[in-house]
Amino acid sequence: MRRIYFLLAAVAAMAGIAALTIPASGHSDEAADPVFGITIPPDYRDWKLISVAHEAGDLNDLRAVLGNDLAVKAYREGMLPFPDGTIIVRLAWNYDPSEENNKVFGRQQSFVAGHPKEGVQFMVKDSKKYSATGGWGYAQFNDGIPSEAKVLKACYPCHVPAKARDYLFTRYAP
Amino acid sequence: MRRIYFLLAAVAAMAGIAALTIPASGHSDEAADPVFGITIPPDYRDWKLISVAHEAGDLNDLRAVLGNDLAVKAYREGMLPFPDGTIIVRLAWNYDPSEENNKVFGRQQSFVAGHPKEGVQFMVKDSKKYSATGGWGYAQFNDGIPSEAKVLKACYPCHVPAKARDYLFTRYAP
Repeated sequence: MRRIYFLLAAVAAMAGIAALTIPASGHSDEAADPVFGITIPPDYRDWKLISVAHEAGDLNDLRAVLGNDLAVKAYREGMLPFPDGTIIVRLAWNYDPSEENNKVFGRQQSFVAGHPKEGVQFMVKDSKKYSATGGWGYAQFNDGIPSEAKVLKACYPCHVPAKARDYLFTRYAP
Repeated sequence: MRRIYFLLAAVAAMAGIAALTIPASGHSDEAADPVFGITIPPDYRDWKLISVAHEAGDLNDLRAVLGNDLAVKAYREGMLPFPDGTIIVRLAWNYDPSEENNKVFGRQQSFVAGHPKEGVQFMVKDSKKYSATGGWGYAQFNDGIPSEAKVLKACYPCHVPAKARDYLFTRYAP
């Protein structure tokens, strides 16, 4: 009996080690996206706020765009094109009604950021490296796992309508 | 004629000086709020994002709550009550449909932050100084002008339902 416990513990420990080093899909948290080679900047959740939005319909989310210092400086100064090294990130959360807030306001009107949505998206400016896609590399990560090439190759064509603002739809919210 | 121009110029210059030193309501941009003595922290727009929300109805805004480093650390660590020195700020913008985004998405679904709304609101934690109002001071500024006492005195009673979370309705959005 003791031996069975030992075996179970050993198997569990090995499974644990495997889980730490090889997440489900075979990528580690530091995996680069397969098209642009972008990895997740470790401090992105600390970046400054550029703007917020609500996508209704199927997406049904509240979202925020944050930027690193280069991004925010360029936005505030109206600098176009954005300098190399600019990175912006788009976070999104479920669009949840808040009964607690509605009670305080006395009416049904309040929607707050709920559970984080999958798909944290980055745009990284490198005018040489990403010259074929307007100077921007695109990445998306679901729980640290980069999206596949097919998804990422669809980003740039969709951003072309914002070419006059260096392919960024989001405007700075003062 | 020359003398009239000179007089006009002199009057205009004096009016300009008066406008610089005494804004319309008689407050300067550094005015403190009349109940809690709070002034606008100069760097608040650089603070980290806590969460976002949409208030529909009469307010009809998109809003973001940012916090200073103490606020964000406390939120992330689940620290209650929040430490003295915590400051949070609530920004809001018009809830504007984005035709540009709708074209890209191929449907009517996109709402973005438009013109900033009046009323930038702060909560400042000082458990001793503000002990009569749950340890928080409240301030609101419209174009740098603090709101009057009647407005500010209404803040605390409305926040009492969130007493279990140290009077903060907003939850951290990871």
